Amino acid sequence: MGMLTGMVVTSRVTHATPAAFSAHVVHRDMEDDIAVQQIGDYPLGRQVDLMLGGGRCFFLPNTTDGSCRGDDRDLIQDIKKNKQYGWKHLVQNRAEFKKLIKENDDKVLPLPIVGLFHTDHMNFEIDRDPKVEPSLSEMAYEALRSLKENRGLGQGFFLMIEGSRIDMAAHDNDPVAHLHDILEYHKTVKVVREFIKKNPGTVLISTSDHETGGFTLGMQSDPNTYPEYLWRPEVIDRANASTEMLTQNLIAFHIANRPSADWGQESYHQRAAQFVRKEILKEGLGITDATNEEIKFLSNPDIVPNDMLRFLGLAISRRANLGWTTMGHTGVDVNLYAESSVENGHWILDRLKGNRENTEIGDYMAWYLDLDLESITEKLVKTADKWFKPKNAFAASGRAASQHEMTGH
Amino acid sequence: MGMLTGMVVTSRVTHATPAAFSAHVVHRDMEDDIAVQQIGDYPLGRQVDLMLGGGRCFFLPNTTDGSCRGDDRDLIQDIKKNKQYGWKHLVQNRAEFKKLIKENDDKVLPLPIVGLFHTDHMNFEIDRDPKVEPSLSEMAYEALRSLKENRGLGQGFFLMIEGSRIDMAAHDNDPVAHLHDILEYHKTVKVVREFIKKNPGTVLISTSDHETGGFTLGMQSDPNTYPEYLWRPEVIDRANASTEMLTQNLIAFHIANRPSADWGQESYHQRAAQFVRKEILKEGLGITDATNEEIKFLSNPDIVPNDMLRFLGLAISRRANLGWTTMGHTGVDVNLYAESSVENGHWILDRLKGNRENTEIGDYMAWYLDLDLESITEKLVKTADKWFKPKNAFAASGRAASQHEMTGH
Repeated sequence: MGMLTGMVVTSRVTHATPAAFSAHVVHRDMEDDIAVQQIGDYPLGRQVDLMLGGGRCFFLPNTTDGSCRGDDRDLIQDIKKNKQYGWKHLVQNRAEFKKLIKENDDKVLPLPIVGLFHTDHMNFEIDRDPKVEPSLSEMAYEALRSLKENRGLGQGFFLMIEGSRIDMAAHDNDPVAHLHDILEYHKTVKVVREFIKKNPGTVLISTSDHETGGFTLGMQSDPNTYPEYLWRPEVIDRANASTEMLTQNLIAFHIANRPSADWGQESYHQRAAQFVRKEILKEGLGITDATNEEIKFLSNPDIVPNDMLRFLGLAISRRANLGWTTMGHTGVDVNLYAESSVENGHWILDRLKGNRENTEIGDYMAWYLDLDLESITEKLVKTADKWFKPKNAFAASGRAASQHEMTGH
Repeated sequence: MGMLTGMVVTSRVTHATPAAFSAHVVHRDMEDDIAVQQIGDYPLGRQVDLMLGGGRCFFLPNTTDGSCRGDDRDLIQDIKKNKQYGWKHLVQNRAEFKKLIKENDDKVLPLPIVGLFHTDHMNFEIDRDPKVEPSLSEMAYEALRSLKENRGLGQGFFLMIEGSRIDMAAHDNDPVAHLHDILEYHKTVKVVREFIKKNPGTVLISTSDHETGGFTLGMQSDPNTYPEYLWRPEVIDRANASTEMLTQNLIAFHIANRPSADWGQESYHQRAAQFVRKEILKEGLGITDATNEEIKFLSNPDIVPNDMLRFLGLAISRRANLGWTTMGHTGVDVNLYAESSVENGHWILDRLKGNRENTEIGDYMAWYLDLDLESITEKLVKTADKWFKPKNAFAASGRAASQHEMTGH
C-alpha cells in the first residue's frame, strides 16, 4: 500500500511540469507518449491517483474533433473502461466535478480520478468560465480533502500543484493574465497553508523553475526623459481579458468579416476599427485612450497573430509602466518558500534554506518522502527497449529521465 | 566613551547613503550642508571617526578649481586645522593612504580620519587607477583593522560600507562597470566575513535599497525570433572600460578635434570613425564587429552625451544578451543577507528573516546597537531653527530626518 499521489495543474496535464512528475520520456514535446504513460500503460503502471487539469486533446483519438494525438488511440475510453489501469472516475467540466463530490458518500472527490477540463491548456483565470472550469484553488482544495479522506487507500500523500500559466502569461508579456493567475496562485497557497496548519506532519514547498519575461514594476518608455518611479495598478485593474483571448477574438473577427465582399475595403477598415476600439481595447483591456496608430495597426487583417499578441501586451504594459526584456525565460533568481507542520521538525526544512540549485528541490522531495529513485530509473532503463516506443517524431534515446529532468518544470 | 563609527563608500561621501548615516537634511541634494555636518559643525558634533570615499569637491571653497560648493567655505582646511571638530588625519590619494598606515606605530589607519580620493564619485572599479584610488575591499579591510585596533577610543564600532556605484552602472545600463563593481563588492563581503569569523560578537548585514535598471540575464533582441536562453559572459569579459569613461573620452575627442578647421568635414568624420572604431569600441568595449550604423552614430560630433552613454550600454548589452527595462529604479524585490558571530546568538538575526520592509533594517540596527534615535531626533528638531541654515536652494522644513530617511540609500 503505497503513498497516494495527485497532480493539479492549469496547463495540459501532459505539459512539462506534470509530465516530469508522472512520465519518463526523452523530450517534453512527446505528449502523445506522456498521456499513455500517465493513464498507466508502462512498466510502472498507473502512478497517479488524482490528475486534474487541461489537455484532453492528447487523450482523444486523431479520428475525433479536438484531438491533437498523432495516432487513433482513445485514452478517454481506456480511462473509462480499461480495468487494467484501475481508473474509476472521469470528469470533463466543473458541473460534473461538483456533482461527483456532492454525490459521493464522503462528500470528497473519489479516487482514482482524472479531470480534463479543457482540450488544451485551461483558460487563464481572468478568462475562466466557472460553468466549465474549476479554479486552481478549488481544484487544490478538493484534491487535498480527497487525498486526506481517502487515506485508507494509501500511506500519506504527495500532491503537485502548478499555477502553470503564470509563466505563459509572462511569455505573452501580458500583465493582466499574469496578475490574475498569480493572485489565484496566492489563494491556492493560502488553501494549502490552512490545510497544513490543521494537519500536522505536512510539508509545503513553493517555488518556480525560472523567471519569465524579465518582468519589472516600473520601466522607461521614453529614453529621453528620466523614468518615473511608479507603476499604475489601476490600468491592470480596468482590464477584463487576457491578450491571448483578445488576440483570438480579433483573429476570429478578421477571418469572419474579411471575405464579405459586399462591403468594400474602406468600409471594412471602419468596421474593424470600431471592433478594435470597442471590443478589444475598451471592453477587453480597459483602454480608452487608444491612438489612431494603435487602431490602425490592429485593424489590419494581414497582421500576424504573434505580432498582435505582443502589440496588445505592450499597449497595456506601457500604460501601466511595466517592463519586459523578453518573451522567453531569464536567468533571474527565483524565490523558494517552504513550510512544515512536522512536530519538533524545525530541522526538516534546513536543506531548503539559503541559495539552492533547482535540482536540489527534487533531491529534497525524494529524501523527505524516502523514495528510491535509483532503483526505479534502473528498472526503466533496463526495460526501455521493450516498452518505450515513441509515437511521434522524436527518437528514443533508450535513457529514462534523469533526476534533473524529473524536477525541471 | 561612545562607539566608534566609520563609513566606506565609492560615491561622494556626501551622497545619499553615507549622508543618511551621518547628517540630517531635508533633501539628498543638499550636499553643501551634508559636508558641513559630516565634519562636525552641527549640534551633534562630529559623528564619524573614519570616512573614506569620493566627493572632495563639496569640501573645497567655490574659489578653488574642482569645487562644487555654492559658498567659499573651506572644509578641507577645517578638517586639517580646526581643532573644534577633532579630525587628525586627511588623505587624498592611495599613496598617502598606504603611507599613513605604514608609518603609524600600530600599522593601522589612525583615527579620526577623512579620505577623499576623488573630487566627484570614485571611479568604477574597471576604470580605477590604483596609484590614485584604493579599491572598496582595500578600504573596507583597512577600516575594519583600524576600528578594531583603535578600540581603546570607544566601545565597539559600527561600519557602513557601500558599493555605491553598482546602482550607478545600472543607471547607465552598463553591464561592464556593473559586473566589476559587483565583483569588487563580493570581494569586500568576503573581507568582512573573514573579519567576523575571527572576531566573535560581530553582526554583518548586506542588502540593497532597490533594484536598478530592470536588469536580466537573457533578453530578446529580435521580436520575431524566439529568444535564446543564454547570455554571453565572454562579451563582457572582453571589455576594458565603463561606458561612462568611454563617453567622456569620446566627448573629449569631439571637443578637441571639431574646431580644427584645417581638416574638412569629410576628413573629420573619417578621423572620428577611426577613433570610435579603435579607441571606443575595440579597445574600450572589446567590440570588433561594429556596424557602419554604429560607427556613424558615434562619430557624429552633435550627439548628446546621454544618448552616447545609452547607445554604448545597449551596444554591449545586446551583444552579451543582457536586458534592461529602464535607466531608473524598479520595484523588484532585493536580497537581504545577514551573518553573526555572536556566541549563542542564533536568535540575533531572527528579526531579519523572511520578507522585510527596507525601514526594518534601520530599526534592526538601532535595536541591535541599542541606539536612542528618538531623543536624538527630538534634540535636532527642537534646535533646528538655530543650526539649520541651508546654503543652497532647498528650503529647510525644520524637521530632522525621520528614521525612514536614515535608512534610505
